[in-house]
Amino acid sequence: MPNPQLLASALSIVLFGSTVSATGPVQAQTAAPPEPGMTSAPVVARSVAEILEASQPSDWRTLDPASTLYLELDSGRVVIELAPAFAPEHVTNIRTLAREHYWDAMSINRSQDNFVVQFGDPAQDDAPRKPLGSAKAKLPAEFARSIQGLNFKLLPDKDGWAPQVGFVDGFPAARHPRANTAWLAHCYGMVGAGRDVAADSSNGTELYIVTGQSPRQLDLNITLVGRVVDGIERLSVLPRGTGPLGFYTEPSQRTPTRSVRLAADVSQAERTQLQLLRTDTALFDELVEARRNRRDAWYKVPAGHIDLCNVPLPTRAPPQT
Amino acid sequence: MPNPQLLASALSIVLFGSTVSATGPVQAQTAAPPEPGMTSAPVVARSVAEILEASQPSDWRTLDPASTLYLELDSGRVVIELAPAFAPEHVTNIRTLAREHYWDAMSINRSQDNFVVQFGDPAQDDAPRKPLGSAKAKLPAEFARSIQGLNFKLLPDKDGWAPQVGFVDGFPAARHPRANTAWLAHCYGMVGAGRDVAADSSNGTELYIVTGQSPRQLDLNITLVGRVVDGIERLSVLPRGTGPLGFYTEPSQRTPTRSVRLAADVSQAERTQLQLLRTDTALFDELVEARRNRRDAWYKVPAGHIDLCNVPLPTRAPPQT
Repeated sequence: MPNPQLLASALSIVLFGSTVSATGPVQAQTAAPPEPGMTSAPVVARSVAEILEASQPSDWRTLDPASTLYLELDSGRVVIELAPAFAPEHVTNIRTLAREHYWDAMSINRSQDNFVVQFGDPAQDDAPRKPLGSAKAKLPAEFARSIQGLNFKLLPDKDGWAPQVGFVDGFPAARHPRANTAWLAHCYGMVGAGRDVAADSSNGTELYIVTGQSPRQLDLNITLVGRVVDGIERLSVLPRGTGPLGFYTEPSQRTPTRSVRLAADVSQAERTQLQLLRTDTALFDELVEARRNRRDAWYKVPAGHIDLCNVPLPTRAPPQT
Repeated sequence: MPNPQLLASALSIVLFGSTVSATGPVQAQTAAPPEPGMTSAPVVARSVAEILEASQPSDWRTLDPASTLYLELDSGRVVIELAPAFAPEHVTNIRTLAREHYWDAMSINRSQDNFVVQFGDPAQDDAPRKPLGSAKAKLPAEFARSIQGLNFKLLPDKDGWAPQVGFVDGFPAARHPRANTAWLAHCYGMVGAGRDVAADSSNGTELYIVTGQSPRQLDLNITLVGRVVDGIERLSVLPRGTGPLGFYTEPSQRTPTRSVRLAADVSQAERTQLQLLRTDTALFDELVEARRNRRDAWYKVPAGHIDLCNVPLPTRAPPQT
């Protein structure tokens, strides 16, 4: 008979059983038996681990090197997938800035608890700033786009912030069918381009990453340019700045950004090998359902719901062939 | 004419203008002018900063020392407000454990990105565990309680996880009127008691703190015992554990818990002086509305919505008299 103290500790294995992924835990449970008297599908509710184990190569995708950004810190690499389908002009500018080494020897200048970290030129107030090279100084606001042409995977759940939410090629997104607009959603790990008061005042040089409770009020108010798909924990643990808005008060507190490069500009050998679960498959539907209603022995009350920003977006190293 | 780069950096001042609080940023903006043609209330939309500045002493409350826990780390103190109205048996046990120095010289054993940190006895598997002293080894599940007797401040917004959500004495909470149940909600900073598979297998020795996107699927499935009201940033930055579920793989990676004490057991001089904004006031209603619809010049599209876990719960040092 196990001792209760042991159980209390072992709880976490059951409670939070998971594989760490970029955006959250992935439950790793044994399947619960079918509910008594259940005669129609789903006959068997598979666990997330079982679902992923049953995945086919076609359920996974690889990153496009031209839309993959490597942020190199002393602690290692952060991999960002850019979203040219939503922010084409910002992504083009970011590619140029990376290619011309704009962010090399700059820094992460801000970490605000339960909100964002932000990197870019640390120059303050009227101090001279690094020239933009051939990147554009001015870009249009890219807060939303038309619905047409998007492979939108609808989440069945209601959302308080938007008429509909779901996923577009792995990105959490929202849409308003009557207004014919779609936009990316501020979930954990999303990357955006800071701006001033004017809607069109961002140019992609100041990038922030969401490291707290999804600040969805920013949706439709600022341009999201991508999502961290690997290494978010190198950003989320950064000491919080003690100045206003989480800015660091001393230059020594900033984390250097060694370099920011497009994967396409890095040799094949230096690229991060990563596969991402596709969000437009039946397998992904099953994974979402497994999280909407947890059927393992630990959960007593399945939620019957999931928030857009609670859906895990699993990644894996490419299987050895 | 300010240079655009400067603006891009200064953006954060406008975009993320805030005072850091335990649960999130508090916007600190100048008020926007009344909307053109607006003739009925609200005539003036005040900013959060203005609202707080206009607050009266009666808008604030102080913590009950008998329900306030000090978790002392090398980095400083984390202040937890316990919730005896929701988890009376757990809170009683936690008071006993603290009084008998149960957690002294224990550790934080787990930090899982975008999820939780957890502290308690680091003993693993079959290793002997610290005796409980006069604390109970077994407690009932306290996942929900009746609605009666709760001062429930309803949030006007829809929630996907529960029929109604709002605040009870400063705690984010949910309720189901027809089922006559109310429960605490897993928002950022909430503190819960780990358990094993059996619903009644927690005893309050293993405590977890939410440090990521609100895992509301845990609501009604585990006993929440309180909320971090100060010092959450001492927990949220802890290096993520690389073992399964974010457990540390080496004992040296654990963060020591120097001591855990009830404020009531600490001398007056050693207590943290802190006031919390009451959630049952007209002022709090105005603050929520100021966040549901941001009316400053930076925001182009007010959300018209707020999620329970995005509502800031401001704290302050007691004003000097």
